Parts: sequence; C-alpha cells; structure tokens
Amino acid sequence: MTENKRILFKSRPAGWVDASHFEVVVAPVGEPGAGEVLVRNIFMSLDPYMRGRMRDQKSYAPGFELGQVLQAGMVGEVVASNDPSLVEGDLVEGRLGWEAFSVAQVGSVNKVDGNVASLSHYLGVLGMPSMTAWVGLRNIGQPKEGETVYVSAASGAVGQIAGQIAKMQGCHVAGSAGSFEKAAYIMDELGFDAAFNYKEAGSLGDALAQACPQGIDVYFENVGGAMLDAVLLKVNPYARIVACGMISQYNLEKPEGVKNLGTMVGNKVKMQGFIVSDHMDLKPEFMAEMSGWLAKGKIKYREDITQGLENAPAAFIGMLKGENFGKQVVQIGEPPK
Amino acid sequence: MTENKRILFKSRPAGWVDASHFEVVVAPVGEPGAGEVLVRNIFMSLDPYMRGRMRDQKSYAPGFELGQVLQAGMVGEVVASNDPSLVEGDLVEGRLGWEAFSVAQVGSVNKVDGNVASLSHYLGVLGMPSMTAWVGLRNIGQPKEGETVYVSAASGAVGQIAGQIAKMQGCHVAGSAGSFEKAAYIMDELGFDAAFNYKEAGSLGDALAQACPQGIDVYFENVGGAMLDAVLLKVNPYARIVACGMISQYNLEKPEGVKNLGTMVGNKVKMQGFIVSDHMDLKPEFMAEMSGWLAKGKIKYREDITQGLENAPAAFIGMLKGENFGKQVVQIGEPPK
Repeated sequence: MTENKRILFKSRPAGWVDASHFEVVVAPVGEPGAGEVLVRNIFMSLDPYMRGRMRDQKSYAPGFELGQVLQAGMVGEVVASNDPSLVEGDLVEGRLGWEAFSVAQVGSVNKVDGNVASLSHYLGVLGMPSMTAWVGLRNIGQPKEGETVYVSAASGAVGQIAGQIAKMQGCHVAGSAGSFEKAAYIMDELGFDAAFNYKEAGSLGDALAQACPQGIDVYFENVGGAMLDAVLLKVNPYARIVACGMISQYNLEKPEGVKNLGTMVGNKVKMQGFIVSDHMDLKPEFMAEMSGWLAKGKIKYREDITQGLENAPAAFIGMLKGENFGKQVVQIGEPPK
Repeated sequence: MTENKRILFKSRPAGWVDASHFEVVVAPVGEPGAGEVLVRNIFMSLDPYMRGRMRDQKSYAPGFELGQVLQAGMVGEVVASNDPSLVEGDLVEGRLGWEAFSVAQVGSVNKVDGNVASLSHYLGVLGMPSMTAWVGLRNIGQPKEGETVYVSAASGAVGQIAGQIAKMQGCHVAGSAGSFEKAAYIMDELGFDAAFNYKEAGSLGDALAQACPQGIDVYFENVGGAMLDAVLLKVNPYARIVACGMISQYNLEKPEGVKNLGTMVGNKVKMQGFIVSDHMDLKPEFMAEMSGWLAKGKIKYREDITQGLENAPAAFIGMLKGENFGKQVVQIGEPPK
C-alpha cells in the first residue's frame, strides 16, 4: 500500500483526446499533514466538462496543469486522518486526483452515507450530474404540464435524469442518443414518450418533428452544433433552452456554426447557460427530493462502470465519443464490505 | 384628392431586396364604411423587422401578401370619419398601408397629441422602436450601475435609445455603427463612452476589447452573425444578450454560423428574444417615462426622413444596407399647420 498509481496530464489536445495525452505513473502514497486525510479512492466520475479543463483558456473550472495529476469527482474511504472531523473508515466524496490514494484537506471532502445507495451513485444520480439536470430544469427550463421537453444525449448522466424529471412533471418528453439500443432504453426503461438515434436519422429536423409533434417548449441542451440548429427551427413561442453543455463541439478545433438563432427573436426564446456549482445552496433540497424519488423507484439510473484506474483514459475518450451507455464511472478500488 | 398612390408587394426577395420587388400604382381613394375612418398619411416608419414579413414563413408578424399594399407604422390625419370616436382633423397612429390615404377601422388606430413632439416622433422615440429598446433593457438586459452595455447598430432607431437609457443607469456604454460619422455621433452627441465603425475595424474582437475593457455585461443585439460571435468571446459571467434583431442576417439566403455559443455555458450567459408587441401593458409607463426624458432633454433622437412615398422602396433597401443615419422615416404628406 505504499505505491500509488496516478494518471498525469501529459500534453494538451488540440482536437480529439487520445492516449498520448495521459501518462500513468507510480509514486509513493502521500502523507496527510495537519487537517488532512488520506483517502483510498473507490469510484471516479468522468464527465464531459473535463474536456474543457484540458484547454488552455480561462473557464469556470480551473484548467488541468500539464505534468500534474488529473482531477475528478471521487468517492473513497478515509484510511488515515489528521483531523478529528473524519475518522478511519469514513466514506467521503470530493474532487480528488486520478489516483489510487489521495491526500485531501478535510474541508474539501464531504462525508457520505454508504447505506443510502451504491457508492457510485454519489457521482451520478445523487451527485453533480443529476443535480445539474435538476437545477437546469428548475431554474431555466421550468417545464409546465403538457409542454414538450426535448433532451439530447438523453441516455447520458444528465440527460436521463432531466427527461425523467420532466416526465414526472406531466410533459411530453422526447430524447435522442447515439444508438438504437440507447434510444430503446430511453423509451422502454426510462419512460420517455419518443426517442431517436440521431446518428441514423436522415434529417434531424424530420426526426424532431416526429418526436415532438407539438414543437419544442424546453430543450435540455447537452450537444450543441447541428442539433441546436435543428431545434431552433422547431421551437415554440417562449421556448426555453437549458444550455448545459455542447459535447459535440468539445473536440473540434473550430466549432460548427449555428445558423438559426434568428428564430429566437420571433419566438421570444430564452437560452441560458448555467453551472451547477453556482447553486450549491440548493443541494439539501436536491438530495432530499432525489433520494425520495430513488427510494420510491421513480427515477432509474444507468451507469457504465469501467474497471481499473489504468483504463480511465480510454473510458474518458470513449465517453467523449458517446461510446458509454449511461453515466461513466471508473472503479478504482473495492467498496468496503 | 380622389387619386391614391400605393406601393404593392410585387415579388418575394430571396436575398437582397431591390426595386423589382415593389410596384407603385395609382388607385382611387377608398371610401370608409361604418366604424371606419379615412386617414391622410403623413409619416411612415420603415423598420428592419419588415424584411422578415417579406418571407414566406410564419413569424410573429403576419407576412406581406403578394400583390397587396405593404404595411407600416404610420401617423396621419383623419379626413373623414364614420364613427363618433374620431373626428376630422384628429391625428392618429397605427399600422396602415404604404399609400397616401388609408381606410382604417377606428379600433386599429390610436389618437396622438400633435403638440407633444414632432409627429414623426410617434414612429420612433415615442413609438415602437424606442419602446423596444426600453422593454428589452427593462425585461432582459437589466443593466446595473457600473456594468458595461454594448449596443450594435447604435445609431439606429432602437440602438440610440438603448444606449442612452443604459447611460442614464450609470453604465459604461459602447456602441458600433457602419461609418465614422455615425460612430462620432454616438459618442459626441449621444454621450456613449466608446464607439467604433465596425466596417473599418480590423478585428471585431480587438475593437470590442478596446471599447469594453471590462468585458460585456449586457449586449443589446441588433445585428447577429459575426458581431454576435465576437461578443460571445467578450462576455462576462452572467451576461445578458437582448436579442432584439439580427439585421446582418435578414438578406442572406443562408445565415452565417455563430461558432462561440459554448461560452454561454461557462459564463452562464442568458440570451433572450422578445417582441415589443407582447408588452403593450407597459406602454403607459413607457410613454410617461420617455416623454419626461425627452422634455428634459435627456434623450436625443436622430431621424432620417426621406421625402415622398415613391421613394419608400429605395429608403427601405438603403436602411437594410445601413445607409440611413438615425431612425428611417418617409414623409408622405404635410403635417397640419
């Protein structure tokens, strides 16, 4: 247990990320100082926004530094503590390193209750991606009963929650994903009213018209580019576009142009970006509501769990290409018994 | 006075509008029926949104019909009335035809007080364009003291008012226009803090950086396309984009692509379209406030008055190309003495 496997950010990608941008190293396990704990990492979250942190430009999350260990949302177990607020055996979540063991300041991690749900769920349905869906709909989308809500990347970590919440609110809910299997999952398992595989749709406009026969009142936007352009031709008056992310653009050296923004004027459309970390005051409300839904079986959640830290780069690259099916997690260690 | 000059919508433009899309005809003056008045038209408003009405697609304003007289905001004098609510000599404004005399239902026109301001002002600073600026800032832009407000098409009918209101609210106000003369007017006469001629700016990004050294908090968007793209790279966190119109795109068969929408997520930007006619409940408040500002000399307003109905098509085409300097009006008849 003195060896720590770590993954460093080796070089900055210009277009698509590949294995050459990562370096796996072995280093000694760190020693926690005063007010610090040593965490044995168990589950790590991979999320599309992390691609943005690989750029050399200011953004809401600080960029990854070259030569340093990458960071991610993590759930782990405290194995040594130099602070009375945490003891050995406590389970915690926080933003830690892509590594087997992390030294963390006690204030940077939060205790989690391992009995509520699978530990990995704290990275998804009870964590940041799910709260992103919940906040985006609550603050921006504000779907009303009978309205049509369309969700892109609808089998992903955020999309599957956004669609299910909208469904509970009495909306016609449509979604798109990158395979027939995912589209079937969205309808058959998650209960969406309509779904399509955008990769095989002859025309996005026709696919949207079929999935959303009454037009689109709320677009939960995870994709950007051509998809956003197609949605802009289907928006109803006073539509809201929840600009959560635009993953189709993250690996392009030059983003695609969106041509149909003019429809926002005549249709009085609102498009608004947001970052979930601005809304942490809502976390208790979110946790209470989502835990309740989960306990009652009202929310389903699919995870795609890759085994082994050394496979995290490939899992991250695959996620950016849409190869995951459900929320992408990497299992680094065994959960406590 | 039995002859009525009228301008018909002859053919639908695909790209730029030209003279061939209009037809000047002479017809008999209409006879007002029950509940109708005959109006002698005096000033006609030409506005960029009218280009949208030339398209064969549903929009917030119904499209112009081929072979029919075009419509516009108008101020005129009642010369015959078949309803007790209006009498000969009353001055009215409403949406009437591109013609010397219009028959109108009494409910479709509003009496105006010819003593408050120049009659043409009811088409501009006391009319729809000015209320558009006022509503857009009030409901969407919501500039706060010390923030930076950037206005494109800033010497136009809407832009000049938007900038002056923002200046009264204690903002750093910058604007752009299509000539050095207009840029000088914006700064020297209207009191903007910075202005530039976008046609001669080597780089829109550099020009914006110089005009808005603290970034952009509110963008009053009249232009779209490349200008919007450049603004998206200068927005501050929580910026608001008031999507009022996108005139640079109106005559393109294929609109330009906007590439930088991704910055809306990280910067939590809101972009919202609106149509002033949704907000007519605010008209009394607007009229009271704007009349007060005008009377106190706090708002300046420049008009570009073309003489003669037969010159309206050329004035409209010129306005779409940015050749007007100030709010574009056509004088059709003489104001009453």
